[in-house]
Amino acid sequence: MKGAVLYGPRDVRYVERADPQIVDPTDAIIRMSATCVCGSDLWPYRGIDAPNGPTPMGHEYCGIVEEVGRGVKKIKRGQFVVGSFFASDNTCPICKDGYQSRCVHAEPLGAEGAQAPYLRVPLADGTLVATPELPPNEMVPSLLAASDVLGTGWFAADAAAVAPGKTVAVVGDGAVGLLGVLAAKQMGAARIILMSRNEDRQKLGREFGATDIITERGDEGVARIKDMTDGLGAHSVIEAVGTQESMMQAIRATRPGGHVGYVGVSHGVALPGLELFFAEVHLLGGPAPVRRYLPELIDLIWKGKINPGKVFDLTLPLERVAEGYRAMDERRAIKTMLTP
Amino acid sequence: MKGAVLYGPRDVRYVERADPQIVDPTDAIIRMSATCVCGSDLWPYRGIDAPNGPTPMGHEYCGIVEEVGRGVKKIKRGQFVVGSFFASDNTCPICKDGYQSRCVHAEPLGAEGAQAPYLRVPLADGTLVATPELPPNEMVPSLLAASDVLGTGWFAADAAAVAPGKTVAVVGDGAVGLLGVLAAKQMGAARIILMSRNEDRQKLGREFGATDIITERGDEGVARIKDMTDGLGAHSVIEAVGTQESMMQAIRATRPGGHVGYVGVSHGVALPGLELFFAEVHLLGGPAPVRRYLPELIDLIWKGKINPGKVFDLTLPLERVAEGYRAMDERRAIKTMLTP
Repeated sequence: MKGAVLYGPRDVRYVERADPQIVDPTDAIIRMSATCVCGSDLWPYRGIDAPNGPTPMGHEYCGIVEEVGRGVKKIKRGQFVVGSFFASDNTCPICKDGYQSRCVHAEPLGAEGAQAPYLRVPLADGTLVATPELPPNEMVPSLLAASDVLGTGWFAADAAAVAPGKTVAVVGDGAVGLLGVLAAKQMGAARIILMSRNEDRQKLGREFGATDIITERGDEGVARIKDMTDGLGAHSVIEAVGTQESMMQAIRATRPGGHVGYVGVSHGVALPGLELFFAEVHLLGGPAPVRRYLPELIDLIWKGKINPGKVFDLTLPLERVAEGYRAMDERRAIKTMLTP
Repeated sequence: MKGAVLYGPRDVRYVERADPQIVDPTDAIIRMSATCVCGSDLWPYRGIDAPNGPTPMGHEYCGIVEEVGRGVKKIKRGQFVVGSFFASDNTCPICKDGYQSRCVHAEPLGAEGAQAPYLRVPLADGTLVATPELPPNEMVPSLLAASDVLGTGWFAADAAAVAPGKTVAVVGDGAVGLLGVLAAKQMGAARIILMSRNEDRQKLGREFGATDIITERGDEGVARIKDMTDGLGAHSVIEAVGTQESMMQAIRATRPGGHVGYVGVSHGVALPGLELFFAEVHLLGGPAPVRRYLPELIDLIWKGKINPGKVFDLTLPLERVAEGYRAMDERRAIKTMLTP
């Protein structure tokens, strides 16, 4: 088969790769219904995390089970499945605590390269969640979103302790930030402030539940959020960027005793201890344990209660993957879906 | 009256100071039953936080109400009271959320200098908690401990989400760390691992509830805790030092999804973002909102269920305050109590 491979900065190619095969008896092979480009794929694409030689790309996926190893008991051939970007056994103590992305047997799906027509998924029984039956085509984008970007936004909102009546601020208007808005809305937030300067993203943010949009950033953004919250700061802040500026913006916009949920992959961040000490906010973040939320998210999508697939504002055939990266890099697209 | 004043590194003197007076109508003046030297007083004492000119010292206190301003409604003359090291109104939204140390009207008691026979306490109705009646003398050390060091250890255990059945590790064997052990025991922890190399502190730690003592530090300490927890790390880690090494030790000793409660006043700490991201631990810390816990702590002491006053292994008259600092600086005493 062919698949996406990153050769160097801004050099993604759709080239011949080995067909995935069952390696361990707990593996499954899935035939991709749709995959996509992640905001985090842009870090290596932009040369910030320089890959060490040609690297298969992609870690978001949903599709039909084509083959299972002899150790796979629950997942069946022919099922439509969604999985997280980390394979997990879903039985170890860390998984049982709900942190499947740090499963003691965790394997990054990124290593397999999901931007391809087929994908090997390790620990299939632990990793994959099947839909009740085959989904209609129009539901596929939302199910694909559950694989990472929705699950990540959801975790950020959960880590930020969003709850009914709370005021939530969202730093970052990428797909994860926007789906953090959607998650906060579902969790009953009273007020959702999205920080964004991009008209298309502001529009989708409002559609997902943002009650306020602010265009200020940095110290000005913090001051604006304080102004809007009687000088106290938001109860819950979702950080979905991963830079020093965005982290400090999130921490400073949170009231004492409030919660920051951070999911932007950290780049060059060092949190000053004394400021953090006196900020007195809860911090939780990291690679989202998407698997914890998948059953609930699939259920919400299946019942038509949420439509996270709207973050895909560009859909291309897999072979035009390079164009998909380019559009996101240039912020012409929020998120690119790729179909075989 | 006389009181303790820091003139420079390792230069504390007991000198004439102005008698405290009612400044605001919400103030109270208390006659000190006992006060003490805090681990955090050692930072300026050692010249690490250099004071800007002569500075009154001390922020831990309990005693008899001598006088109240006309705005004080609940606290009465003659009551025995304990308060936190931050005055708080206990009515603002931040106080209502339980973060009284970050009250919108918070005032540090340290500015008043509690190592003296009398103390002005701002916002008396919000700050002070009265005991049911005048306590017996032997209970005074424990009530004094509630003012900071017990309340701080308690907050650290709470922030670290200690709960029945959990494994807890404690970084720091000062009075706060030791009372973190006591708090963890009260909260039902199954296993409490104290990191200490000092025999007296190990002994008191065991008395307070430590089930294991380990002498390894840094990476070796982390490895030892991992060994003791099936390679996973502790559920809850209490950090009671405030250095880069102690913070990283705490973060690294915590399992993914676990909780770090940090209360050591941060000195020269910068938390590396990417490591924190992949550690995926909950972080909460800062100046303890002792006021939240005071009613419960006073009740436990009153009923004889806890005896935190045992951390005072040296008692001196106030005029020998300099000797009290010296003993703690040289780690000959865990904590020095001072009596008028």
